[in-house]
Amino acid sequence: MQSPIERLQQELDSQNIDVAFVLKPHDVFYLSSYASVCSGVLMTSEQEPVFCTLWLDAPEAREKCALSRVGTYVFPEQSLVGRMIKMVRKQGGLEPKRIGIEKDFMVARQYEMLTSEFPQAELVHITPVIDGLRAIKTPQELEHIKAAAAMADQAMEAALAAVAPGVSELEVAAEAEYVMRKAGSLRTAFSTFVASGERTLLAHPIASPKIMQPGEAVVIDLGAVVAGYSSDLCRTTFVGEPTPEQRDRLRLVFKAQESAAAAIKPGALAKEVYAAAREVFASQGLERLLPSDLGYGVGLRQSEFHPVIERHSGTELKENMVIALMQTTAYDRSVGGLRVEDTYWVSPEGAVRLTKHRQDLY
Amino acid sequence: MQSPIERLQQELDSQNIDVAFVLKPHDVFYLSSYASVCSGVLMTSEQEPVFCTLWLDAPEAREKCALSRVGTYVFPEQSLVGRMIKMVRKQGGLEPKRIGIEKDFMVARQYEMLTSEFPQAELVHITPVIDGLRAIKTPQELEHIKAAAAMADQAMEAALAAVAPGVSELEVAAEAEYVMRKAGSLRTAFSTFVASGERTLLAHPIASPKIMQPGEAVVIDLGAVVAGYSSDLCRTTFVGEPTPEQRDRLRLVFKAQESAAAAIKPGALAKEVYAAAREVFASQGLERLLPSDLGYGVGLRQSEFHPVIERHSGTELKENMVIALMQTTAYDRSVGGLRVEDTYWVSPEGAVRLTKHRQDLY
Repeated sequence: MQSPIERLQQELDSQNIDVAFVLKPHDVFYLSSYASVCSGVLMTSEQEPVFCTLWLDAPEAREKCALSRVGTYVFPEQSLVGRMIKMVRKQGGLEPKRIGIEKDFMVARQYEMLTSEFPQAELVHITPVIDGLRAIKTPQELEHIKAAAAMADQAMEAALAAVAPGVSELEVAAEAEYVMRKAGSLRTAFSTFVASGERTLLAHPIASPKIMQPGEAVVIDLGAVVAGYSSDLCRTTFVGEPTPEQRDRLRLVFKAQESAAAAIKPGALAKEVYAAAREVFASQGLERLLPSDLGYGVGLRQSEFHPVIERHSGTELKENMVIALMQTTAYDRSVGGLRVEDTYWVSPEGAVRLTKHRQDLY
Repeated sequence: MQSPIERLQQELDSQNIDVAFVLKPHDVFYLSSYASVCSGVLMTSEQEPVFCTLWLDAPEAREKCALSRVGTYVFPEQSLVGRMIKMVRKQGGLEPKRIGIEKDFMVARQYEMLTSEFPQAELVHITPVIDGLRAIKTPQELEHIKAAAAMADQAMEAALAAVAPGVSELEVAAEAEYVMRKAGSLRTAFSTFVASGERTLLAHPIASPKIMQPGEAVVIDLGAVVAGYSSDLCRTTFVGEPTPEQRDRLRLVFKAQESAAAAIKPGALAKEVYAAAREVFASQGLERLLPSDLGYGVGLRQSEFHPVIERHSGTELKENMVIALMQTTAYDRSVGGLRVEDTYWVSPEGAVRLTKHRQDLY
């Protein structure tokens, strides 16, 4: 199989992109198997790519980075993009006509440096291309995600055990994160969500000092990181016993998740997977509770933008994608925002669940 | 005392900025006492500021946000900046001539939306203005930082106790972070650094799976967060006993830190504080080991860009700033990158140390 650099170079060539500035840490890591704080990869069609980093971090970069050329800059006298522009100039050759950048990551200051140095160049958004490459996992990447999934399973047990009346959401997060860290997680894949009561309705309910009360639903969403790769696992539990309504809703969410997972296979479209979940809610007349997006890719981030399991998305699922379902909540003011989520591998035969935590909590 | 919004509005007026898009989560929090994931504050000279957020997060925003106007957007159909632009248009009035943005945060995609909607407008970098406001802490902000400093002290004890041959850097981070989380820290102020042996030379030595070996220096740098506000504390220890050379170097670093702290007072210039540390190194002929920046402000971030204790900086220190010294390492390939750091309040009488962890480790 070709390296990520080779695959990206082909894509850049096919789009006539002369130079690309890759700055997003996950993309930098993807291309070079290494990323330090404030590093980047400069790609040009004619020369080998260069990994750029702070001079202090150059020794580690030279040891760990998959790219053989390492360039450095001194902070605060120099800047990463300033240095990369100088490298483009040093290589000589023609004035770049099309420059690839990540328009969802490069900041205005860097953007203005580029437009002022290359006023004639067209700036092309290359994130979708890199996202597409990142979506298909190698066997090695899959192994890392599996290991991260196992850590998430362990952490969920600890989190569920910590839920009790009078305990804060933060304390639940503390127990979960401790287990992941001790198991070797490089960081949390994202800010751990612990949401009780009304907070379950928030889009991103990061654990807060709120104290859990009897009868409240509690949503716990967490992920570990192994060698850069994330897992994503969410369970809903209750402080004490759920009401029949809460239990029924949670079962419905699990059923929708199962139905969506059963629709996953190479060649299926994202909207077909969405429809499979929606059908389950529609059978109860509750389809209005579902947001228009239900799942996202999983890899270097716990939530990647290719594929997105969105209501109208024609994106085709492919073998060796990894997808988390359902990342969003079934929004209901009266019952709360109950959610469940697992990480699935798109195998040749269909979805294989990588997070193994039991689903029959209630 | 005026509110942050009032102070910023005055600054914007004085720079003839008609509209400002504030997107950086720390700036949003500073202005509105609240920030959700993907939220922003729209400031215009004529109308009340608007807090913009995902519709799901609006109920919490209406409850917690200090601004009375809350606008919402739906994702993925809409975008935060797209919605804010619509609000500007709705207000009618004159075409904005000068638009304030955070050029170190707004991404290219958002920047292009603005330049395409307001092609005639000049985009003005407002981060330095907000940084300047954020630098001066209120009594309430100081209380939060003190509480976060106390958590860091506790965590450092746990981290130091975990250092032993055969233990991984990650395990040390696990113990420290667990203590902070259980004490109520909203998150870690930054990715905890645990660096042993050669890794002490890295600029940002985030804890790794590396196993600590006898005789190695170990740098531990951590911070807690209380009500949004950070602390920053760093200590260097050793696996076993230090060599005389290691011990002498560590004492020199502490002495330089003490000397710099003694130079802190309202009215002092950043470069004078830098010079006080440098003098100590120069007395041993070692000034070449010091980088050109030694300290940064502390507040919503553990490392703020006003003030920067930099070799040539004429920035004047003011009462109620908070500064961490020394954030960078004394770089020496043979001895390692030993560092120590504490969080100081610039009181009327001079520096008051907020992190209380003992400094006489060796």
